[in-house]
Amino acid sequence: MSVTAPQGFRAAGVAAGLKSSGALDVALVVNEGPAQAAAAVFTTNRVQAAPVLWSRQAVADGVAHAVVLNSGGANACTGSDGFLDTHRTAEHVADLLACSAGDVLVCSTGLIGERLPMDRLTAGVDAATAALAADGGADAARAIMTTDSVPKTVVVERDGWTVGGMAKGAGMLAPGLATMLSVLTTDADASAEDLRAALRQAVRTTFDRVDSDGCMSTNDTVVLLASGASGRAVGREELTDAVTAACAVLARALVADAEGASHDVAVTVVNASDEDAAVAVARAVTRSNLFKAAVFGNDPNWGRILSAAGTVPVEVAPFEADQVDVTINGVQVCRAGGVGEDRTLVDLAAQREVRVEIDLHAGSATATVWTNDLTHDYVHENSAYST
Amino acid sequence: MSVTAPQGFRAAGVAAGLKSSGALDVALVVNEGPAQAAAAVFTTNRVQAAPVLWSRQAVADGVAHAVVLNSGGANACTGSDGFLDTHRTAEHVADLLACSAGDVLVCSTGLIGERLPMDRLTAGVDAATAALAADGGADAARAIMTTDSVPKTVVVERDGWTVGGMAKGAGMLAPGLATMLSVLTTDADASAEDLRAALRQAVRTTFDRVDSDGCMSTNDTVVLLASGASGRAVGREELTDAVTAACAVLARALVADAEGASHDVAVTVVNASDEDAAVAVARAVTRSNLFKAAVFGNDPNWGRILSAAGTVPVEVAPFEADQVDVTINGVQVCRAGGVGEDRTLVDLAAQREVRVEIDLHAGSATATVWTNDLTHDYVHENSAYST
Repeated sequence: MSVTAPQGFRAAGVAAGLKSSGALDVALVVNEGPAQAAAAVFTTNRVQAAPVLWSRQAVADGVAHAVVLNSGGANACTGSDGFLDTHRTAEHVADLLACSAGDVLVCSTGLIGERLPMDRLTAGVDAATAALAADGGADAARAIMTTDSVPKTVVVERDGWTVGGMAKGAGMLAPGLATMLSVLTTDADASAEDLRAALRQAVRTTFDRVDSDGCMSTNDTVVLLASGASGRAVGREELTDAVTAACAVLARALVADAEGASHDVAVTVVNASDEDAAVAVARAVTRSNLFKAAVFGNDPNWGRILSAAGTVPVEVAPFEADQVDVTINGVQVCRAGGVGEDRTLVDLAAQREVRVEIDLHAGSATATVWTNDLTHDYVHENSAYST
Repeated sequence: MSVTAPQGFRAAGVAAGLKSSGALDVALVVNEGPAQAAAAVFTTNRVQAAPVLWSRQAVADGVAHAVVLNSGGANACTGSDGFLDTHRTAEHVADLLACSAGDVLVCSTGLIGERLPMDRLTAGVDAATAALAADGGADAARAIMTTDSVPKTVVVERDGWTVGGMAKGAGMLAPGLATMLSVLTTDADASAEDLRAALRQAVRTTFDRVDSDGCMSTNDTVVLLASGASGRAVGREELTDAVTAACAVLARALVADAEGASHDVAVTVVNASDEDAAVAVARAVTRSNLFKAAVFGNDPNWGRILSAAGTVPVEVAPFEADQVDVTINGVQVCRAGGVGEDRTLVDLAAQREVRVEIDLHAGSATATVWTNDLTHDYVHENSAYST
């Protein structure tokens, strides 16, 4: 049910001809209230697509009536003309829904550096509006897919209220530039301020810790809409908990569907001095091509893990290299910075999921970052996408 | 002639059985004076191999009589036993050369997490000492190769004095952990202080700007030895100029020999606010797997270049995303952050070298970072190396 699982939402996904395949490519999610509170987080890339520039402004007042999303084109690096295209799209949706354009958020995903075919997109918005339905969440989730092999949706039920969500992309999934889009909905009654706090906290520990290939998109957007239709007033803590649970499911689904990948790798750093230190070390390992290629080869090459950890500046993550332990799938292959258990005891071929634990012996903080292995198929897909 | 091109040096390379192939694997370079000034730079990885820990101490006084190098084992993550192995190696060389162990530098390259076979290494040192010759530079250059397909050497002639050098590895070249080793020699008469300044400056603009896969080794070492045998007192500026020229040749040779690579890519940032900003932007692009995979696919995907540039924090490199131009092999495919010339005009398949120029329009500083494309063979080699 995705974004239409909570009360107060309708959605649709239609084929507007933006994708040459004829697949669904325009999605619309409408919040029918009674409340229309909203929050969003965006890519921190300094090269920001037109829809990101637009939506950041539009959501600043904490109100959004609808989100229109398209696959088949990112509308990034398209200059002021591209921005006008986004503006026109929002205005067209606003006309159809009889709301203000400033309450319509826009998300796009696909190749960058190309204008959107506005005639098709506009006709697609018409069709999506006509198709809006209380069970339209599934179609909407399909319409935002690019190279995703399955739509990603989630429903988190709480006592009398619900969080629903959909997502596409991430890292290897989206060779066009790794765009990740997600729309979350809830029928909780919550302030925009609480939505913002909950979303920021949720993203920080979920989507921000999926690092499939270290590349940051121009279009990444996560939106959270609250209708209040359940009549339940929900506090910030409860809200954060449910939104985090929903984001965690979607983030894990993105890693699991990374095309070209043969392993999902969870790198957990334990006993770090603080959470930032744990994240920094985990991220350094998840960004090491040598480590990721070794995982592809089913090689428990702990030296590459240690070496990647060693690139993190001491002021970011204090630890002593000769105290670090590394455990891969339960086998402590590195102990105190040197050789531990026999590495041949580690079987990476048996399953897709790989668990790496790095014990820094420098404190008590923990963090996990997910990534994928570096494979022939990753190289193939990312070298062949736009040509 | 490599390291034996300048006067006052002898060298050798022998097969000690560290490599299962039977190829040369132990090298020795001896400075016969009259001076024995030395300087070195080492990896900044916090996980440092035993020979790095040793050599850093040994060279601190600005004096070195010899450098012993082995391939076939990195002696990294081997704990205090590994450090004793390095110490014993230096002492054995010192005994044979009748000098102090503290004047013998040690370099190792190969797999990490494994002890060196000290009996073979010691026998190899005996053989290398016996084989020392004024034309031994070529053998020494061969003995430090790992997956290098050719030895890398350089000779820079100046007015009455010479700089010689050899190098191995870098990025894709050395899947064992990307170790880069280089020994440079000169018969100039120069102080250790001037050698240090010259080497630091030379490395900063050459080896430090080769970023084949973004991975930093536990063993990287560059050594500069001066014999003074030419009788020419050389000032710091002249010395820096010659050493930089030598390092530039070797660095370029490393990129050209990157196994698994099908393109060498020079990313030049122009009109940056300062040199650090130019390097930061160039490095972000050379570390983008999406960009590197696109180059492998002969795809002039400027969106991935712009997007990688956009990940650099504004305080590091101030620029406006909508002012950036990108030129690939002479074709300005991106102008003012948007579409420029027709990208199909760029032919990446015609030659191995790719030239990317990014104009930030934010100042007047320039820097170039070299990298390679991300290929099937890179993945293959780095997934199959140690298993």
